[in-house]
Amino acid sequence: MAETIIKIDLNKSAYENEKLHNRWHPDIPMAATVKPGDDFILECVDWTGGQIKNDDDASDVRDVDLSQVHFLSGPVGVEGAEPGDLLEVDILDIGTFDDSQWGFNGFFSKQNGGGFLTEHFPEAQKSIWDFNGMFTKSRHVPGVEFAGLIHPGLIGCLPDKKMLDEWNRREKELFDTDPERVPMLAALPYAPTAHMGKMKPDDAKVAAEEGARTVPPREHGGNCDIKDLSRGSKIYFPVYVKGAGLSVGDLHFSQGDGEITFCGAIEMAGWIHLRVNLIKDGMSKYAIKNPIFKPSPITPRYDDYLIFEGISVDEDGKQHYLDANVAYRQACLNAIEYLKKFGYSGAQAYSLLGTAPVQGHLSGVVDVPNSCATLWLPTDIFEFDIKPNADGPTKYLDGSVDMPLAPDLDK
Amino acid sequence: MAETIIKIDLNKSAYENEKLHNRWHPDIPMAATVKPGDDFILECVDWTGGQIKNDDDASDVRDVDLSQVHFLSGPVGVEGAEPGDLLEVDILDIGTFDDSQWGFNGFFSKQNGGGFLTEHFPEAQKSIWDFNGMFTKSRHVPGVEFAGLIHPGLIGCLPDKKMLDEWNRREKELFDTDPERVPMLAALPYAPTAHMGKMKPDDAKVAAEEGARTVPPREHGGNCDIKDLSRGSKIYFPVYVKGAGLSVGDLHFSQGDGEITFCGAIEMAGWIHLRVNLIKDGMSKYAIKNPIFKPSPITPRYDDYLIFEGISVDEDGKQHYLDANVAYRQACLNAIEYLKKFGYSGAQAYSLLGTAPVQGHLSGVVDVPNSCATLWLPTDIFEFDIKPNADGPTKYLDGSVDMPLAPDLDK
Amino acid sequence: MAETIIKIDLNKSAYENEKLHNRWHPDIPMAATVKPGDDFILECVDWTGGQIKNDDDASDVRDVDLSQVHFLSGPVGVEGAEPGDLLEVDILDIGTFDDSQWGFNGFFSKQNGGGFLTEHFPEAQKSIWDFNGMFTKSRHVPGVEFAGLIHPGLIGCLPDKKMLDEWNRREKELFDTDPERVPMLAALPYAPTAHMGKMKPDDAKVAAEEGARTVPPREHGGNCDIKDLSRGSKIYFPVYVKGAGLSVGDLHFSQGDGEITFCGAIEMAGWIHLRVNLIKDGMSKYAIKNPIFKPSPITPRYDDYLIFEGISVDEDGKQHYLDANVAYRQACLNAIEYLKKFGYSGAQAYSLLGTAPVQGHLSGVVDVPNSCATLWLPTDIFEFDIKPNADGPTKYLDGSVDMPLAPDLDK
Amino acid sequence: MAETIIKIDLNKSAYENEKLHNRWHPDIPMAATVKPGDDFILECVDWTGGQIKNDDDASDVRDVDLSQVHFLSGPVGVEGAEPGDLLEVDILDIGTFDDSQWGFNGFFSKQNGGGFLTEHFPEAQKSIWDFNGMFTKSRHVPGVEFAGLIHPGLIGCLPDKKMLDEWNRREKELFDTDPERVPMLAALPYAPTAHMGKMKPDDAKVAAEEGARTVPPREHGGNCDIKDLSRGSKIYFPVYVKGAGLSVGDLHFSQGDGEITFCGAIEMAGWIHLRVNLIKDGMSKYAIKNPIFKPSPITPRYDDYLIFEGISVDEDGKQHYLDANVAYRQACLNAIEYLKKFGYSGAQAYSLLGTAPVQGHLSGVVDVPNSCATLWLPTDIFEFDIKPNADGPTKYLDGSVDMPLAPDLDK
Repeated sequence: MAETIIKIDLNKSAYENEKLHNRWHPDIPMAATVKPGDDFILECVDWTGGQIKNDDDASDVRDVDLSQVHFLSGPVGVEGAEPGDLLEVDILDIGTFDDSQWGFNGFFSKQNGGGFLTEHFPEAQKSIWDFNGMFTKSRHVPGVEFAGLIHPGLIGCLPDKKMLDEWNRREKELFDTDPERVPMLAALPYAPTAHMGKMKPDDAKVAAEEGARTVPPREHGGNCDIKDLSRGSKIYFPVYVKGAGLSVGDLHFSQGDGEITFCGAIEMAGWIHLRVNLIKDGMSKYAIKNPIFKPSPITPRYDDYLIFEGISVDEDGKQHYLDANVAYRQACLNAIEYLKKFGYSGAQAYSLLGTAPVQGHLSGVVDVPNSCATLWLPTDIFEFDIKPNADGPTKYLDGSVDMPLAPDLDK
Repeated sequence: MAETIIKIDLNKSAYENEKLHNRWHPDIPMAATVKPGDDFILECVDWTGGQIKNDDDASDVRDVDLSQVHFLSGPVGVEGAEPGDLLEVDILDIGTFDDSQWGFNGFFSKQNGGGFLTEHFPEAQKSIWDFNGMFTKSRHVPGVEFAGLIHPGLIGCLPDKKMLDEWNRREKELFDTDPERVPMLAALPYAPTAHMGKMKPDDAKVAAEEGARTVPPREHGGNCDIKDLSRGSKIYFPVYVKGAGLSVGDLHFSQGDGEITFCGAIEMAGWIHLRVNLIKDGMSKYAIKNPIFKPSPITPRYDDYLIFEGISVDEDGKQHYLDANVAYRQACLNAIEYLKKFGYSGAQAYSLLGTAPVQGHLSGVVDVPNSCATLWLPTDIFEFDIKPNADGPTKYLDGSVDMPLAPDLDK
Repeated sequence: MAETIIKIDLNKSAYENEKLHNRWHPDIPMAATVKPGDDFILECVDWTGGQIKNDDDASDVRDVDLSQVHFLSGPVGVEGAEPGDLLEVDILDIGTFDDSQWGFNGFFSKQNGGGFLTEHFPEAQKSIWDFNGMFTKSRHVPGVEFAGLIHPGLIGCLPDKKMLDEWNRREKELFDTDPERVPMLAALPYAPTAHMGKMKPDDAKVAAEEGARTVPPREHGGNCDIKDLSRGSKIYFPVYVKGAGLSVGDLHFSQGDGEITFCGAIEMAGWIHLRVNLIKDGMSKYAIKNPIFKPSPITPRYDDYLIFEGISVDEDGKQHYLDANVAYRQACLNAIEYLKKFGYSGAQAYSLLGTAPVQGHLSGVVDVPNSCATLWLPTDIFEFDIKPNADGPTKYLDGSVDMPLAPDLDK
Repeated sequence: MAETIIKIDLNKSAYENEKLHNRWHPDIPMAATVKPGDDFILECVDWTGGQIKNDDDASDVRDVDLSQVHFLSGPVGVEGAEPGDLLEVDILDIGTFDDSQWGFNGFFSKQNGGGFLTEHFPEAQKSIWDFNGMFTKSRHVPGVEFAGLIHPGLIGCLPDKKMLDEWNRREKELFDTDPERVPMLAALPYAPTAHMGKMKPDDAKVAAEEGARTVPPREHGGNCDIKDLSRGSKIYFPVYVKGAGLSVGDLHFSQGDGEITFCGAIEMAGWIHLRVNLIKDGMSKYAIKNPIFKPSPITPRYDDYLIFEGISVDEDGKQHYLDANVAYRQACLNAIEYLKKFGYSGAQAYSLLGTAPVQGHLSGVVDVPNSCATLWLPTDIFEFDIKPNADGPTKYLDGSVDMPLAPDLDK
């Protein structure tokens, strides 16, 4: 078996493990070093570092400290890697821990994080998903069982100083356009909860002031939350610093395109088995700015879909100009209304769209003024038939089960 | 063989055929009537009504009159259909005419229509695609041959008056925010080039003043340009008027998600074989606002992809807030730069993304401030290997062939 | 459109068309000639040359003259082709005639042809299948509708004299081991019903005495009845004579692995669109004895199956030694018994296995003494759910419809 | 995590573990008991009980004691199961042991077991396959790496006494037709190496005289070696005895259809995670004789193939009557000759066909006298392009690496 070069202890704070970190900075020391051609295993905490529990109370979701996320395993140094190279990464496998056979999905309160449909679901809710081998189901969302399309939500190499500065510049510029907005427009560096890995305390203190938050995807990949970047795929990452510095975390058992629930996919702790190789000077050879990848030969084969359309006219009837976000939101809302006809609550339907292997396509992006997005709902994950027929839908669920909700506290 | 209830003559003007129309209006008379359970064939002109020719000169693309589009075949009345029903439509097949074995793709001038990458490709260009049975290739874009994912870009039922008024209201409101913009923000009703089908001249004159343009997708479906709504799929359309009034046009031999080139997919004249059925009161039974559909069991099986990521930081380094359009544009630009390394011109690469069965996914939509979109390029359509390797790319094309370009004329 | 180089008339006898033939012989003159790189269309009669009618009477199946089959379109000469080359054939498309939108399936009488399950279904029966665009259904086998996996049952190049002699030698040797057997062990040359294409009458008379029958698949391909050699596939045929001499016929709208019903798949008249190229000296370069091929990118995507096992113990409990035929027969019988629980007659179930895109796998071939074969029945072709559940099956069919049967006549 | 109810120790003899057994007999006591709805894990030794080592010497394959195989984990009793029920088994997952990340494939000597191509490969050879997460490659068969289609080669319920007697009767009858044959026609009961699980020694001694060998697949399933019965699939087993008595073993990391190499697939020790449910009286409800199953939603997506045909004319030119075994053997030999053109030895090519996710189809079974079988070789498992082209094949392998061979010893 490949060597596990980063280990974690689910019973300890992520801050105690110096092979984890939660900010991007070029000076974070390598947690371990490998050679091209090596394969190795990294253990990962869940993205929140254990803040969410396997219970029926959503107050942990409501009260989450998002300034702590995401705890990443790494950086892993690769011998010989230099700026301008491409780091070829094979995700050989991803798995769960024997004593942690579950994951969580939820909606953050609009006051603390929000999500894609936060105007419709403004309060904290969560659902717990149990793993049964390759499959998952939830005591909070009955009527479905599906195979996991397991993937890391977040993976990428350390930025160099120039790139880091650019990230901070442009995000600050956006933030400053509406600094009071809730949820905020961008997550800026925040030192108090930074974890800078093995960095010496004094250095860490300084670096934390500028260490980029891990929330958005960026040029290096990072928190892309691409469900198809799953175990078995092969990815080519830009290298910016000597040794590359590959970090990974935010493992998902399954997710729909968009990760619309934000909190998040089916979030889990687990391990990832990687193999690395180099394409010297690959960034310029292939004109690479962002990572590219080949999908896995092994993915759940849910090939029958019911597809919902959405256009860029919002819930109030307002016309937006070619706005794919508005269009995808309408497609999601259309799917939720449809699922409610079978007995799901709106929250359950929303949770399903965030967790199941749903596809979201940018179907039309030029037909002014309406963008057209489609949401592809796999029909075979349901224990009953959800296709339309002349008799109309049957209510398979009686409403006796719903997702826990934790109302916002008075302020 | 099913009866061909609407026929066309490619040598005559679309305006001469009263079973075609190019505006949406509830009062357009039915061009033909069928019963639930019937199957029938409709012939269709290409979306421009024959303005673009099979030659090596892009001036027809530059000079296109977009106020004429799209010429639709219909409306087809369905006996017993009433507002609130769902019209179930099986696309039994779509085909080409023996004497019209070709289609076109192009970029409109930024001065006259534009497209998704119009800032990068501001002048009119076109490519011609020949059909060889189920496959297509182009004398202007060498190195690829692929199977057609044939579909109607535009299909839907007539709106009622209330819906029409709402369309006109909201689109006018948007238009008025910047009436001078080029390209314009919305295509408003325009009587001079309207074709109102069988409507009597006097009535047509009045109706044309408010007849909605066919460019955007809307609640009824319409110009969704969804490549997966292909032959073999089953669609459920909302019905707004007595008899439903189903119209269809804008046939595509193949298209990538987004139809980013706008002019357009691989555009063609051809025929479509449909079967219709009704789900009485289906809109309320299933909470349907926009059409839903099941994909076809028969589609090209291009399952190996190279996937490009894009984030919502634009070409100038400006940070946008969760803007999926910007993200998808970056993914497209990344793919184009990659393909140029193999010898394609930028225009050829752009054309490929508009025509081949490319997928565009809304991969991440919540990780503030960056949306993450992915563009999936099928690798098996190429006659050479486009995957990265340690030696770098080989220039398979020598640049001797490119797409015709017609510069904007002085004004 | 590609040129149609062989045309047929469904209202005339196949014998009147000198661009057809029904025997294999090196001296049959080319019916047409093409160049490498050309694409062209061949029209084909159904394999029996029109002996079976679109009606509800199976006596035509019972009384079929099998010595006439198969009528092939060709041979097509390819300029520059020489013995030892590989002829690369792209099946660009296959289609039906507007005035012949139907096909037939049936079981021959055990006295006249038989079939894979002839001991269980010894009398002639037939089912008619109507085509609706890409889909088919039958008035004799209700409850299913599926997309066609259209393919030629028979395609290959002319043998040279040496190969022809070898065919005749070995088949005669087998025949002679039991000359009285019904059905017979092999179909030997039979001059009275031979159609030798353009060959001059005197020459034809001689050649017909040794012209190989078209029934079995052989080294050149021929009557392989491989459902996956469908439109869109690319095949590499061994070339034995100057000009290659490619002939094709026996078009199938759909077929299950094995073509177990023998009469046959869903048999049809139609046209096939081909493109040819040469790999000079390809037989020795690639050690080719039999044709090889790449499957089509476009095939019906029926990916959910119910899989039946069979082992090489026959219906009487007799143990056979690693006999895959016995094993597959048991898998077929198991599937038939299963389908009868939903209301199908045995004949209808048998017909379904012969026509639908059923897979037959040689799953285990070494575990003495039992071969294990599996029959894969696609579940999505049924209008109802055929999967097992705790409540047991529902009889969806009431038995009021069955396949016509024509009893053997007294002798 | 589900409970592991049967554990093994790879360092101890399988005979010491009373929760294993290697014969079928109704009186073998349950090794453990579960309830309907339970999920649980069984650990399994490899099918030979550890006789084959991870080294470069094939003498262990030559000297294997086949009378010991297969060591099965079980039987597992299911509360409430009665004869006539169907036992629904979900294979939730299958995995490897951290300290046993390898498997073996080989050919038995013709003197001791043989295989599908034993006339061509009469001496013992082996290849070792290393596991890298979901992928495998071999130091003895370079140039390929592929994802595992992990499955149990052997799974089924205990027979009752009547069925056991029938098995022994019919297999003895076959054996007696040629008792001296090498390899033998059937493996009859053989007491000296029997392992009867928890059975008391005196009872075991008696039962071992009639306990059926585990080699062939039979009505209960058993050693079917069906590659598609993989993790994620759902199987319905006939129940013959109270408590069902489910046993499983012979885990394969990957296998081609037919398991043609007999020794065997990629054989491994590992664990299997199962869930069981009952369909009461299901055998009669659904007319079940042999098990049926639904394939997994998660399987390697190797969808591009090169397909080889074979017909039932043997290597000596002898014509066989509709013999699918002969046809499949020819398809295998054709593929081997083809692969040799790229530099593989015959043994390496044979091993590849036995281990990779190759499909074997019964393509035509009625076209007298030739059966037509097809072997589907996935092209994406190779590190180089194996498709034909006009220039002919490139020798990617230089022949410096081959599979170890252990010559038969003098007698």
